[in-house]
Amino acid sequence: MNYKIINGTLLTHTEKGFEIEKKDLYVAEGKIVDPARCEGWKEGGYETVDARDRLVMPGLINMHTHAYMTMMRNYADDVDFDEWLFKRVMPVEDQLPQEAAYWTSLLGCMEMIQTGTTSFADMHMFCGQSPKAAKEAGMRAFIGRGLVGDDLYGDGAGRFKEALEEKAAYESEQIRFILSPHAIYSCSARLLEQVADEARKSDMLKQIHVSESVAEVENAISKYGKTPVKLLKEIGFLDEKTIFAHCVQMREDDMDILAENHVHVVTNPASNAKLGNGFAPIVEMQKKGINVCLGTDGTASNNTLNMFREMGLLSLIHKGIHKDSTAAPAQFVIGAATVHGAKALGMEGKLGVIKEGAYADLVFLDLKAASLYPNNNILSSLCYSANGSEVESVMIHGKFVMKDRELLTIDKERVYSEVNKIVEKYL
Amino acid sequence: MNYKIINGTLLTHTEKGFEIEKKDLYVAEGKIVDPARCEGWKEGGYETVDARDRLVMPGLINMHTHAYMTMMRNYADDVDFDEWLFKRVMPVEDQLPQEAAYWTSLLGCMEMIQTGTTSFADMHMFCGQSPKAAKEAGMRAFIGRGLVGDDLYGDGAGRFKEALEEKAAYESEQIRFILSPHAIYSCSARLLEQVADEARKSDMLKQIHVSESVAEVENAISKYGKTPVKLLKEIGFLDEKTIFAHCVQMREDDMDILAENHVHVVTNPASNAKLGNGFAPIVEMQKKGINVCLGTDGTASNNTLNMFREMGLLSLIHKGIHKDSTAAPAQFVIGAATVHGAKALGMEGKLGVIKEGAYADLVFLDLKAASLYPNNNILSSLCYSANGSEVESVMIHGKFVMKDRELLTIDKERVYSEVNKIVEKYL
Repeated sequence: MNYKIINGTLLTHTEKGFEIEKKDLYVAEGKIVDPARCEGWKEGGYETVDARDRLVMPGLINMHTHAYMTMMRNYADDVDFDEWLFKRVMPVEDQLPQEAAYWTSLLGCMEMIQTGTTSFADMHMFCGQSPKAAKEAGMRAFIGRGLVGDDLYGDGAGRFKEALEEKAAYESEQIRFILSPHAIYSCSARLLEQVADEARKSDMLKQIHVSESVAEVENAISKYGKTPVKLLKEIGFLDEKTIFAHCVQMREDDMDILAENHVHVVTNPASNAKLGNGFAPIVEMQKKGINVCLGTDGTASNNTLNMFREMGLLSLIHKGIHKDSTAAPAQFVIGAATVHGAKALGMEGKLGVIKEGAYADLVFLDLKAASLYPNNNILSSLCYSANGSEVESVMIHGKFVMKDRELLTIDKERVYSEVNKIVEKYL
Repeated sequence: MNYKIINGTLLTHTEKGFEIEKKDLYVAEGKIVDPARCEGWKEGGYETVDARDRLVMPGLINMHTHAYMTMMRNYADDVDFDEWLFKRVMPVEDQLPQEAAYWTSLLGCMEMIQTGTTSFADMHMFCGQSPKAAKEAGMRAFIGRGLVGDDLYGDGAGRFKEALEEKAAYESEQIRFILSPHAIYSCSARLLEQVADEARKSDMLKQIHVSESVAEVENAISKYGKTPVKLLKEIGFLDEKTIFAHCVQMREDDMDILAENHVHVVTNPASNAKLGNGFAPIVEMQKKGINVCLGTDGTASNNTLNMFREMGLLSLIHKGIHKDSTAAPAQFVIGAATVHGAKALGMEGKLGVIKEGAYADLVFLDLKAASLYPNNNILSSLCYSANGSEVESVMIHGKFVMKDRELLTIDKERVYSEVNKIVEKYL
């Protein structure tokens, strides 16, 4: 289906940053097009969408999550990190059957769609389930099977093989794959080296958790004599196709290394605060020219996949830390949730923007929601007053997955019923 | 109208804290009743409300806001404090007509109702407008005309007279009044002394902004040789009927003074972070036994009146600062938004709780909202994953003001149209 979207207020992006524009928008074959230059465009051969009183913005990109964990929402809170991980989260993961991960990933997709996320980068443990859920939901996903172990010929082999098989089985224009070694404390240096080699050979992105906690950095120094960032540099892991999640406990020279090597950073403010890991030095990284993206992490540590909540947090936390009301401004925050993610994913100009040739991943917000009213400054409102509930319709790859708050790809009651059974059995 | 609320999941409160209970709830003449002991209760003489799949919780208490500022939402962001206050906010306030404050306060009431707030403590500049809006919206409010000046016989006289006239004209069971001197830098010590005397004589509560910024504390030390808290102690301003908003820049002995004098503190995490004032030492104050309540401040510095957003922030910020995942737990945060506020207002057992004899100020949340699902831990969900959009129905003083998301006391389109005119003329 082709679409002509009329009367809308658009959030567009130029080299000067985001701005608000009123103009019509044309969608054909999954992309935003200029009808004058689009062969597939015929007058009358489209459906008209009236976007009066709506903001049409690019879909948000959640750059770090674990969708399969969504059933653990609000399951282990106000406890210390060791109890959280070893007594609550891991025992559940260890006994969860494959299919459970499908239903709980679908629950995650549902919440993401409802709150305006159209793309997500996922690290998982259950092959095939996250791609299946993302595909059914009609989302765009960049998925990696979490890798751990000693090396690709030892106990790291199984998961690595699974990761490549998953890519072969599920890769498509909307579902792509990332190599996702878990962390330097769960992967040997040898395995990380091999993953970096494989990524270069097969031209794949890599994502890894880095310097999330004080303990991780202290243990790295005690085991390797250096910080996780320096270890990864030595291994040859760093390049412009590398994405580091967290980066909370960073030294000055760690940040310089990331900047020099064009590594992308995903900050997860809710998760880092909630687990007591602290606040990442985002303002400092931004000043060094590091590309900072935004993610929610999984619901077991957030406890929501709502990127609007995350955007507000990102700005408020860093304004508070720096005692500077101009720190982490709305322009930066919206960028972190859109164009910065697109850049990290190698999708500049394709995702996170409304422009000719970009994928038609569009979110329609109700500008008459009380939280946005009056519409004094729409850019500000996305960062400081929106809560995600303003999202009414969501289009991904030119197809509506939610229209006027009705989910078109997900059977909510079925998902709830299946997730309930899993919760009753395993939590 | 009397109500019998059936099939609901209730958030109740005992000395052990909040808990989840399944039982029926009875409402008569504005209060929660035990039908066996309520003379006005007759079988059949009530309407039944089916609250299946709903959480019924006490209405939230926003302990510090300026509802008349709601039209300035997203109007002055990412600018420094001086530009914000002197170039953006004050020039608008100075030219605003009385009636404008009524419409913009009503917009504030609308957002508060939609996000589960039933009571608010308001400091304003336009007499009669905030009480009129709160009354029409059917809300419960504790209102104070902001006082500034030299003394009650000099230039402080006019506003003080207005404050007392406003109380005389509008006071009712739902609309009560507070004496609200603005701050130590806008009121002379003499005026503050006189306000404290008047409060004792007329048995009124007092609310004042205290130690919000570094500059306020530094200026107090330079002018008076002491911190704002110590100045207010010397003046005789402190007692259990005193509410301090902000308290961001506190010294150890300032906190001891508040604890000894049973002063209540309202923290406003979004506003304090956003204006670059920092983070209040909430965990420390809580340890000293100070009653810590929660508020949003006005939308010019927040930019929303959504108490669910504020609850999440309160917990996450203090977990992050203390690198402690058990800091500011859900029990404390929900208390700060309910029973702690009730205590500060002298309404213990009347507000912020579901129990016999309390006002029927009730909020109904959709437990099947994705953000709350699965319902692993409802207490946690209120703090960590709810965004306020789960609120479906709101009852205040035994009357529904919103039912199934339909506003029953406020004409939304009229409010928007009037606010629009004001924005066009004055912003």
